[in-house]
Amino acid sequence: MINITFPDGSVRQFEKGITGQQLAESISSRLAQEVLAISVNEQIWDLTRPIEADASIKLHKWDDEEGKHAFWHSSAHLMAEALQALYPGIKFGIGPAIENGFYYDVDPGETVIKENDLPAIEAKMIELAAKKEAIVRKDISKGDALQLFNDKGDEYKTELISDLADGTITLYSQGDFTDLCRGPHLPNTGEIKAIKLLSVAGAYWRGDEKRKQLTRIYGITFPKKKMLDEYLVLLEEAKKRDHRKIGKELELFMFSETVGKGLPLWLPRGTALRLRLEDFLKQIQRRFDYQQVITPHIGNKQLYVTSGHYAKYGKDSFQPIHTPEEGEEYLLKPMNCPHHCEVYKFKPRSYKDLPLRFAEFGTVYRYEQSGELHGLTRVRSFTQDDAHLFCRPDQLKDEFLKVMDIIFIIFNALDFKNFEAQISLRDPNNREKYIGSDENWDKAERAIIEACEEKGLKAKVELGEAAFYGPKLDFMVKDAIGRRWQLGTIQVDYNLPERFELEYTGEDNQKHRPVMIHRAPFGSMERFVAVLIEHTAGKFPLWLTPDQVVVLPISEKFNDYARKVAKELFLQDVRVTVDDRNEKIGRKIRDNELKRIPYLLVVGEKEMETGVVAVRKQGEGDKGTMTPEEFAAMINTEVAKMMNVY
Amino acid sequence: MINITFPDGSVRQFEKGITGQQLAESISSRLAQEVLAISVNEQIWDLTRPIEADASIKLHKWDDEEGKHAFWHSSAHLMAEALQALYPGIKFGIGPAIENGFYYDVDPGETVIKENDLPAIEAKMIELAAKKEAIVRKDISKGDALQLFNDKGDEYKTELISDLADGTITLYSQGDFTDLCRGPHLPNTGEIKAIKLLSVAGAYWRGDEKRKQLTRIYGITFPKKKMLDEYLVLLEEAKKRDHRKIGKELELFMFSETVGKGLPLWLPRGTALRLRLEDFLKQIQRRFDYQQVITPHIGNKQLYVTSGHYAKYGKDSFQPIHTPEEGEEYLLKPMNCPHHCEVYKFKPRSYKDLPLRFAEFGTVYRYEQSGELHGLTRVRSFTQDDAHLFCRPDQLKDEFLKVMDIIFIIFNALDFKNFEAQISLRDPNNREKYIGSDENWDKAERAIIEACEEKGLKAKVELGEAAFYGPKLDFMVKDAIGRRWQLGTIQVDYNLPERFELEYTGEDNQKHRPVMIHRAPFGSMERFVAVLIEHTAGKFPLWLTPDQVVVLPISEKFNDYARKVAKELFLQDVRVTVDDRNEKIGRKIRDNELKRIPYLLVVGEKEMETGVVAVRKQGEGDKGTMTPEEFAAMINTEVAKMMNVY
Repeated sequence: MINITFPDGSVRQFEKGITGQQLAESISSRLAQEVLAISVNEQIWDLTRPIEADASIKLHKWDDEEGKHAFWHSSAHLMAEALQALYPGIKFGIGPAIENGFYYDVDPGETVIKENDLPAIEAKMIELAAKKEAIVRKDISKGDALQLFNDKGDEYKTELISDLADGTITLYSQGDFTDLCRGPHLPNTGEIKAIKLLSVAGAYWRGDEKRKQLTRIYGITFPKKKMLDEYLVLLEEAKKRDHRKIGKELELFMFSETVGKGLPLWLPRGTALRLRLEDFLKQIQRRFDYQQVITPHIGNKQLYVTSGHYAKYGKDSFQPIHTPEEGEEYLLKPMNCPHHCEVYKFKPRSYKDLPLRFAEFGTVYRYEQSGELHGLTRVRSFTQDDAHLFCRPDQLKDEFLKVMDIIFIIFNALDFKNFEAQISLRDPNNREKYIGSDENWDKAERAIIEACEEKGLKAKVELGEAAFYGPKLDFMVKDAIGRRWQLGTIQVDYNLPERFELEYTGEDNQKHRPVMIHRAPFGSMERFVAVLIEHTAGKFPLWLTPDQVVVLPISEKFNDYARKVAKELFLQDVRVTVDDRNEKIGRKIRDNELKRIPYLLVVGEKEMETGVVAVRKQGEGDKGTMTPEEFAAMINTEVAKMMNVY
Repeated sequence: MINITFPDGSVRQFEKGITGQQLAESISSRLAQEVLAISVNEQIWDLTRPIEADASIKLHKWDDEEGKHAFWHSSAHLMAEALQALYPGIKFGIGPAIENGFYYDVDPGETVIKENDLPAIEAKMIELAAKKEAIVRKDISKGDALQLFNDKGDEYKTELISDLADGTITLYSQGDFTDLCRGPHLPNTGEIKAIKLLSVAGAYWRGDEKRKQLTRIYGITFPKKKMLDEYLVLLEEAKKRDHRKIGKELELFMFSETVGKGLPLWLPRGTALRLRLEDFLKQIQRRFDYQQVITPHIGNKQLYVTSGHYAKYGKDSFQPIHTPEEGEEYLLKPMNCPHHCEVYKFKPRSYKDLPLRFAEFGTVYRYEQSGELHGLTRVRSFTQDDAHLFCRPDQLKDEFLKVMDIIFIIFNALDFKNFEAQISLRDPNNREKYIGSDENWDKAERAIIEACEEKGLKAKVELGEAAFYGPKLDFMVKDAIGRRWQLGTIQVDYNLPERFELEYTGEDNQKHRPVMIHRAPFGSMERFVAVLIEHTAGKFPLWLTPDQVVVLPISEKFNDYARKVAKELFLQDVRVTVDDRNEKIGRKIRDNELKRIPYLLVVGEKEMETGVVAVRKQGEGDKGTMTPEEFAAMINTEVAKMMNVY
């Protein structure tokens, strides 16, 4: 008999050799149906693998990342099995589970696999899944594995095996298909009920553009048909909200190959939106006693050697900038923190001066491979709404509370109603890998936990997820279509104050190290605007939207009156344009509604004579007539109300 | 007889061999006393040099750069003569006239020349000047010149002569001193009546840090004692106003060797000041239909090859940034214009869309030798208040008028009452060196001249001073102590639209090139803030100053009341601090007046009881008591009045 410890701490005895599947059955038949994988002593195993000694276990269902991962990994194998059946002689690269589904890189030889081949592959997968073939794990020696794939003529797998250390290698098989794989996998392919192959792309073998380009096939699968249907609807909706598409339509930002990949250029409307967000945060920060600073976008290489960023980013990022003489070396800044540490050192600081809160909308530069770039969410230059708080250890909790206030104000103003928080703490079994004293860590961890409690914020606590330099608090928001985005990290840092030898004179007249907190409620302006576009589908709140109002003259006769109205609104700080195109009024209304402009003001004979405008609100229709002054007052009151969140 | 043409076009006959001095005497004895040099066919000559053929001439007095230059150049020789007398065996490098005075680089061998040796050298110079020694020009062959300086053992002069082309070489002598020199010089040393040697510095021979460090002695001289006295007062005043000194005292900005030379870090108070200036200009620009854009601080090298900036800045500026893979090359941007051209190209433009005005507070990076750096006026990174106007040729004049309006609003708001303008046009005899059609140049030049006339602006017209890509209008302001600063250039550009192939569709449905105007009223935020500091001696106008008000509790008992007052003012958007140091009230008033805070609010027993503050205005003293609300309203009205300049 062996002792099995469950996640709730309870211990039960089972016969040696019991499997995860059997453990699930011992609890309930429903669990047995839903379970997908098992963690045994924190390693993920197949449900069919016998447990031979005492162990802590956790059973994983679909809702766990681990469960999904096994499901999609087995789905990749199922697709490979189908491909092998449909394209004899096809060779296989790698086929992992990813964030949403899986892919497999394959070499179909002379044949070309295109998007319109995908339905046939799907059909074959469904046929194979219906057979409920068992997925079987097998240990063999490296030599035998090499022999096996060499015999098959699969040079990719052979290369992968050659790179592995000597020893036992695991294979997984189902039906006629065998793959080199660490697992874990589902017990059999029958669990895979709903299948959608999504796209075909090219991918260099091992990511090396000098090697062969393989065919990458993406897919996603679910245990239920309904789940797939819901996913496809979401995918369709996400496509409509794609910030790259809307960003172009609404003329918010652009990219230019001539300027460089991944370097966004903010167009006038996007700039107006972004600056309004920045001003909003600046206003809030003023109330919270932040001080703006401005620092250069480069720094001497030595600055980043001191901070440790060079060791971390140096090789893989933009390379050093040399000067034509004097032999200096500069780097584009990957982070603002070292500059803010230098600002801290401008003069001696006393305990009375703390906390100091230096804020900067600081543009940083980090190299990303061009294949990794994606709209505004993955770029090579981005502007952090950065601030560094320098405080005494006893001020940490209060600072956390205040930063949380700021984050809640923002979430509220931008209608992010659903969010979760996660506290990342030390690994209590591995304390020596963290910088800073035990006492300070205890203080900081307690401060974060207590701050969350005081705010009534339910936060998931994750042990061992803290950075080596300090614990942190993260927020994840759910957008309008249920996708999760990480926004707003509050990170304690004991490392940089040490590296930059920051000091303050305490009440005891001795020198002390301040603690540093990094925080960026938006994260970066680029990523945040992308999230905001996808969250609102481009229908920004009135206070934020680049064009609040468009005036629509019914015909050319009323263009001058329309311009007069617009000028009046403009002088009342309303953001207004005139659509004086020679088009029918119905067409003008449609076009401007597509541009997501909140208010449309129609003007014709009647309006001109009485000096009014006919107001239409996006999504609500006719709101009657009023004078331009009345309308401006209404708009400005609506905006002030929204902005007055603090 | 020869014909001499005077600057007013009149022609008179003189005997061949007449000198500049004699020409001046032929006009008036006063002019003969004041004249310092002569231009003969646009070459500057000694007044004693005979004119042998027909020539156009111009006589130069102290007010001309040419006159001052000859005066200071002769002064450098006079200093050298004195040094030779005082330090036998001393060797000479170069000794030019500079913007304010002159210097000489010398090698005194084993001896060290220090600041406290300067009075003795001055005395010797005065003694020699009193001798009114003639300064005599002599032509000799290169070989003879080499022989002469070789005999003297002066390896510096020998090296300079060796580098000259073969042929005639000119020497100038006075008393026992002979120098290699192109001239021109004063007729004799007697004109130099007032002498001040200013400082001693080290300077590498030929600017090469691998060669010997010579001793550089700076000085300045004047034809009248009174002029020197005035200059020394100005110098003293300028020292007090030095923006580097005030910038540190007021905690506006800092430099950090660790971040890098010439890279300013804006401290909180400086940032607040700068952002307020930026917001002020943004507000004005909104009224003038500018659109803000934001572009990255780097660009692909090819972008600058296209723009021509790489050819101009490439070798001498920050070197290209390489990527760790993909072999890309980026440059720190030296200019914002190429990026704005890309924004223009975002979509097709029609004649109806023009003018388009893209504005950006864009930080640019240009390498300068560390020896050239100076506070905020000569830096390696600076933020231009840049805008590029894209218009049709027929819109040029209107755009000039509007930009001039903006510049006048700024000069007015910042109390620059004295300014001059200069129009730089083509060289009419050399039209082929300019890009763009004759017709467009005529149009642009006429537009600028007419715009100046319409504004009633007297502008100096300079032929041949235009850039090859377009004519321009410059402004020079005089600051509070009479120094001139160039601020606000409006530059027409026919080149970049061509290089970037910018187009718009005209009313004729054909493609046309827009004209581009570059303009930056402040120039750069760094330089402008430096000028503003030196102009105001740090006493910024109320709307701009970082701290408008400080509350001074008479003793600790009133600290809480002081904080309550400050909080109330803060919520009314007043920029306020509390001086709660444990110091006497007299000391607090003095310290805060030194910090140039416009309003001091003193609070004690009486004020606390009646809920008021006692107001002191900087430079004006006691202004009675009022409630915090009354005070806030007063301040805010004063600010609004100042800001309401447009």
